[in-house]
Amino acid sequence: MKVSDIGEFGLIDLLDKMASKAEVRATTAGEELIIGIGDDTAAWRGDTSVQLATVDSLIQDVHFTLDIIPWEELGWRAITANLSDIAAMGGRPRYALVSLALPGDTEVADVTALYKGMIELARQFEVAIIGGDTSRAPLVIINITVLGNNESSHILTRSAARPREKVAVTGHLGASAAGLEMLTKGLQFNPGAMTVLTRAFRQPWPRVVEGQILVEQGVRAAIDISDGLVADLKHICQASRVGARIEIDRVPVRSEVAANFPDRAMELALSGGEDYELLFTASTEVMERVKEAVSCPVTVIGDITAENAGEIVLLDRNGNTVDQVSAGWDHFSRRAS
Amino acid sequence: MKVSDIGEFGLIDLLDKMASKAEVRATTAGEELIIGIGDDTAAWRGDTSVQLATVDSLIQDVHFTLDIIPWEELGWRAITANLSDIAAMGGRPRYALVSLALPGDTEVADVTALYKGMIELARQFEVAIIGGDTSRAPLVIINITVLGNNESSHILTRSAARPREKVAVTGHLGASAAGLEMLTKGLQFNPGAMTVLTRAFRQPWPRVVEGQILVEQGVRAAIDISDGLVADLKHICQASRVGARIEIDRVPVRSEVAANFPDRAMELALSGGEDYELLFTASTEVMERVKEAVSCPVTVIGDITAENAGEIVLLDRNGNTVDQVSAGWDHFSRRAS
Repeated sequence: MKVSDIGEFGLIDLLDKMASKAEVRATTAGEELIIGIGDDTAAWRGDTSVQLATVDSLIQDVHFTLDIIPWEELGWRAITANLSDIAAMGGRPRYALVSLALPGDTEVADVTALYKGMIELARQFEVAIIGGDTSRAPLVIINITVLGNNESSHILTRSAARPREKVAVTGHLGASAAGLEMLTKGLQFNPGAMTVLTRAFRQPWPRVVEGQILVEQGVRAAIDISDGLVADLKHICQASRVGARIEIDRVPVRSEVAANFPDRAMELALSGGEDYELLFTASTEVMERVKEAVSCPVTVIGDITAENAGEIVLLDRNGNTVDQVSAGWDHFSRRAS
Repeated sequence: MKVSDIGEFGLIDLLDKMASKAEVRATTAGEELIIGIGDDTAAWRGDTSVQLATVDSLIQDVHFTLDIIPWEELGWRAITANLSDIAAMGGRPRYALVSLALPGDTEVADVTALYKGMIELARQFEVAIIGGDTSRAPLVIINITVLGNNESSHILTRSAARPREKVAVTGHLGASAAGLEMLTKGLQFNPGAMTVLTRAFRQPWPRVVEGQILVEQGVRAAIDISDGLVADLKHICQASRVGARIEIDRVPVRSEVAANFPDRAMELALSGGEDYELLFTASTEVMERVKEAVSCPVTVIGDITAENAGEIVLLDRNGNTVDQVSAGWDHFSRRAS
């Protein structure tokens, strides 16, 4: 059955039922929900904590191609970017509004799979899908707004990095970009590596829990790695008016990337992007506390400097400056794949 | 200069400066704003009133074509739909997140004009643009999320209509659809009518002030007319499990529509859509209070019935049932123009 067979209102009904059936509405967030999908707006009871809002678009043939990602994983991946943005502020994601644009000949089963993947990840963090919009379009466009809040004493910002702080990153880098390349070019590696790289690209995990721990432990400056390590660190440096030095040998490259892309592993880790790890700065003392408090790896990769404001200096094992690799992916200037 | 010449980050910088320069941030809403555009999320101090959120997409060649609407008016029209949704809940719009997808060869001047039109209308209601997202795409896609709140004792919903209430509508109907048709087909009318119809299509006015007055005066059920009078009344009837009777001769057709589309004026008024007037139900007593309190026309066009739940009955001047005209525009089943 095609989307055009059931029409816009039919599709809205179907997706609303999916969002309602999922336990996402029976969560803490859901208790304060007054109206979900089905009226002119969603409505819920507010609170006096700091409110957070972020929006992100995935556009077919720009951000993804349907030949290398199934619909369900596409739904998962679509909402990851938003959840990760909330994580990078140290917040708790609570509500999502999903705007879908689809060709009329899209299979209804594909749309419900997309929604299922989205709900699956949302449910992990008790995020309720409370609204949205569907339209016809010549290509698939997924636009998600996530609202969250932060009940701590402060939020994590890009502008709070200070000279002499250490720079650290959660998890490992490069696997999402490596997975994209592997899938696009049809590269064959051993099954274990292929599983890891495929999953890193299709179903990245937002560091929502870790972001909240960073705040609790006293971190003040953070960003999530969506554009790439160097590009995102540059965002911190520009906003904070500081510089940064990265010792590239300390960058935690995912082992499957190092093994299968020996010549390009560092480039993928430094500028691949979409790993959705958290990049943050803090004093040595706070770093130690963070390492103990989180259950994922945390690696110190460099430090913040007063000089070279807005710039990233990359150092090799001998302390020599190395040429800056391409600084992330600028949507208008370069192609996705 | 093209968008691809300044890149994604260049474009974000430019749009952020426009949003900052506009006084929209120096409004009541702005005072509670902690972070606008430029970090991972926007952030502001919450309050305990009812929070409202709505999202709406405009897609090139589906919802608009660039030959019949200039960029600045496109920006205005894009945000109208969202502001109108907040109005239909009796709320006050406060913050907007704007997600733009554009071909790389779009002129930067066109994007800034789009943004200017959006800011111009947002400013009328003290709405601050606090975040967004830009992407490259093969066509123009404008996705706007508006957040608002309602500090009254209740909100306006689709599900609160009760039998024996009167059905009323603000303003006049049919001009937006008539304007679209006039511009698409290049029809020529007298200059005054052309100005009215062009403006109704390109720069519709959301009934934000009126929505709040409806709540204050005790109205409980409302919707904004985006799909068309009959289709939107049907949404109320289905959500409220009631029926409705409309006396079509009482429907306030815009005079320029009646004069220039004599055969089709009623059809345009009943199912044209995108007039962004408010359609609501209330007792005769409340209706009288509303008429006195608002400065725009309010016309009673029918009543709510216990029978025929979910259905709209159209009556002519003799009280005879007339055939239902096409019930609004379903995005997947029919074309825009």
